[in-house]
Amino acid sequence: MPKIVDHDERRRELADVALALVAREGLAAVTTRAAAAESGWSTGVLNHYFASRGDLLLAALRRAGELQGRTYESILDGGADARARLTAVVESVLPLDDRRLAMTRVFLFFYAEGAAAEGARGEIEGFLARWRRVVRGVLEAGCREGTFPPDLDVDAATFALLSLSDGAAFEAVLDPVTMAVVRADGFAARCVAAALSAGATG
Amino acid sequence: MPKIVDHDERRRELADVALALVAREGLAAVTTRAAAAESGWSTGVLNHYFASRGDLLLAALRRAGELQGRTYESILDGGADARARLTAVVESVLPLDDRRLAMTRVFLFFYAEGAAAEGARGEIEGFLARWRRVVRGVLEAGCREGTFPPDLDVDAATFALLSLSDGAAFEAVLDPVTMAVVRADGFAARCVAAALSAGATG
Repeated sequence: MPKIVDHDERRRELADVALALVAREGLAAVTTRAAAAESGWSTGVLNHYFASRGDLLLAALRRAGELQGRTYESILDGGADARARLTAVVESVLPLDDRRLAMTRVFLFFYAEGAAAEGARGEIEGFLARWRRVVRGVLEAGCREGTFPPDLDVDAATFALLSLSDGAAFEAVLDPVTMAVVRADGFAARCVAAALSAGATG
Repeated sequence: MPKIVDHDERRRELADVALALVAREGLAAVTTRAAAAESGWSTGVLNHYFASRGDLLLAALRRAGELQGRTYESILDGGADARARLTAVVESVLPLDDRRLAMTRVFLFFYAEGAAAEGARGEIEGFLARWRRVVRGVLEAGCREGTFPPDLDVDAATFALLSLSDGAAFEAVLDPVTMAVVRADGFAARCVAAALSAGATG
């Protein structure tokens, strides 16, 4: 009987290996050869699934996006109040542990790629649009529930929360001073408070 | 008599050419060949000054940093009140015209490089530290002058302003929705107001 290979499953496994490498050693460490060594598969198998290092990184980006989508779902389904949900959304995108540090590094790489070439831009625009939708949805729910002011400028608050989180995450990856601030207790809650101030009207 | 060549001057000229290419066509357009064509110098001359595309981009980063340093000086010496100076600092780092769009793209590229490899990290850390010093200095002056509340949490406000500006600038380069927000009237002033809220105490 021929061996049945679940190709999607194996691609996912290898993308996870790439993310683990990014977390542990940074983006420069990700090569198909290193991913082969880390996964126990041969370089030939790696090359079968990924034509290049760029392909492997793109798979890692998509895998990070898929995991992030699940995180959003579990936050939104969690039953906490809007402020706690929003704080959890901010925490989910900050480099607070190895998994999220890898995600930040991979997103930063593709932000820069997207700025340089059309190829990655569509992916990144899609992730930004989903993130904006999640934040906006929680803000609107909070206004309805009475957690946030009914006259909140949801556009302005959404925009501020995305910029603050992205800027803080990217600077933290490069700069130890910023990383210490981002990892201090209550940082995400302060981002939420600042975004609500940015959306305050009247 | 031998021709006297000012090598620093020529390197600067070629770095400006690279920045003009980034502004007009994006980072992917920057090659030593394209910079040669744009500048009127031969590829040989380009290769004499820059061993690789990476070298040319690094020169463009340093040139952008040098121009930005002059911009900070002229803002700080300008005699406007602290709020106006701070708003001008924010405007100077947002992609509001071609020059600043090129700067954002080049910085984003090196943020990602810095996240991937040690080489660029020192440069970027230096730029972040200078920017933080400028913002903090204007905030402290504003507290002394009475423009800002005397009990402002200057650390928190500085941090928020850097994150907001960087996040907005990087997202704008990738995302037309964000670019429209960033280029709308009064955006920098709203960033300043949000940062002051983030630093409000009591």
